[in-house]
Amino acid sequence: MTTTPQARTVRRGRPGHDLESVLQIAVRLFNERGYDGTSMEDLARKLGITKSAIYHHVPSKQELLRLAVDRALDRLFGVVARAEAIDGRAIERLEYLVRGSVAVLVEQLPFVTLLLRVHGNTKVERAALARRREFDRIVANLVTEAENDGDIRPDVDPAVTARLLFGMVNSLIEWYRPGRGDSDIAEAVARIAFDGIRVRA
Amino acid sequence: MTTTPQARTVRRGRPGHDLESVLQIAVRLFNERGYDGTSMEDLARKLGITKSAIYHHVPSKQELLRLAVDRALDRLFGVVARAEAIDGRAIERLEYLVRGSVAVLVEQLPFVTLLLRVHGNTKVERAALARRREFDRIVANLVTEAENDGDIRPDVDPAVTARLLFGMVNSLIEWYRPGRGDSDIAEAVARIAFDGIRVRA
Repeated sequence: MTTTPQARTVRRGRPGHDLESVLQIAVRLFNERGYDGTSMEDLARKLGITKSAIYHHVPSKQELLRLAVDRALDRLFGVVARAEAIDGRAIERLEYLVRGSVAVLVEQLPFVTLLLRVHGNTKVERAALARRREFDRIVANLVTEAENDGDIRPDVDPAVTARLLFGMVNSLIEWYRPGRGDSDIAEAVARIAFDGIRVRA
Repeated sequence: MTTTPQARTVRRGRPGHDLESVLQIAVRLFNERGYDGTSMEDLARKLGITKSAIYHHVPSKQELLRLAVDRALDRLFGVVARAEAIDGRAIERLEYLVRGSVAVLVEQLPFVTLLLRVHGNTKVERAALARRREFDRIVANLVTEAENDGDIRPDVDPAVTARLLFGMVNSLIEWYRPGRGDSDIAEAVARIAFDGIRVRA
């Protein structure tokens, strides 16, 4: 529990880190090297602090993963809650969910990227996958409801429609880079997904 | 170079492997554990043969990767060639390319999955990424041409339209499992991508 003046000086000389900045760098490393391929040693080196300094902020690597995927999931389920509160047709709730999800992807790109690459080898990953399945189930139910309302094309299996719709949304993690027309991207996704790329005759 | 009768018998007693079956198992392992995370030792164990028996078929792990991603790329560029030979409007060539790409994904799912997860750390991966960029460039040019023809909506940046279109197509590697209505999936993608999920008023 004692710290030599020397150590204190060295510590002060380095850039300060709080849990948030540790988390940001951890997520970046997990995305670059994979969660399994990143050690707390790697993270400490990247942060320029000791492993024990990391453990001052967070008890384990798994807890960093949990914080990261929960941030993405909490934002996405926030959109779900707001969509479900809309007093309108299912297709309007679905469109709100698509636009809101795109906004979350854009704002939390590294966190959602990590979430969408989770495999399910640990308890934290399995819990994240369970919440992802719950999200997918909500989307599939909305698509089915909107199809029953006569608002969504009945000639494609609703489960396939739901997958393709969020396949398009989630593809943003592969190619979208923040900064170029952030406000237009949700609009672009909504237009293409709901009305297609073809000009109507 | 000599083989004892004993060894010959043991070898005969094991299931035979040719390059194709070695490649199939290698691709499955690369997809499960990552290319970097899979050793020739792992592959030999999975095949139930020795490492030197693998080297009888293929000189290196990198060559297995090259054979796998080239198979996926060769099929995709086969579709490009047939699309470009169509004597019609750009949007017809684009629709052929979308349907044909979905067919390649369905038929060669593990190979295309591996291709789409390539990072670019080795010469083979960088070469694959260069061919993928060439494919993306062809798609983007077709979208631009179709937009200039007045066939594709002009209110979304053609580069974004192209990304979202193939974001939808490529999402199949995340959720599509062969066997359930293979013939309908290209049709479903084409309908939703070109005409949207919404019923026209």
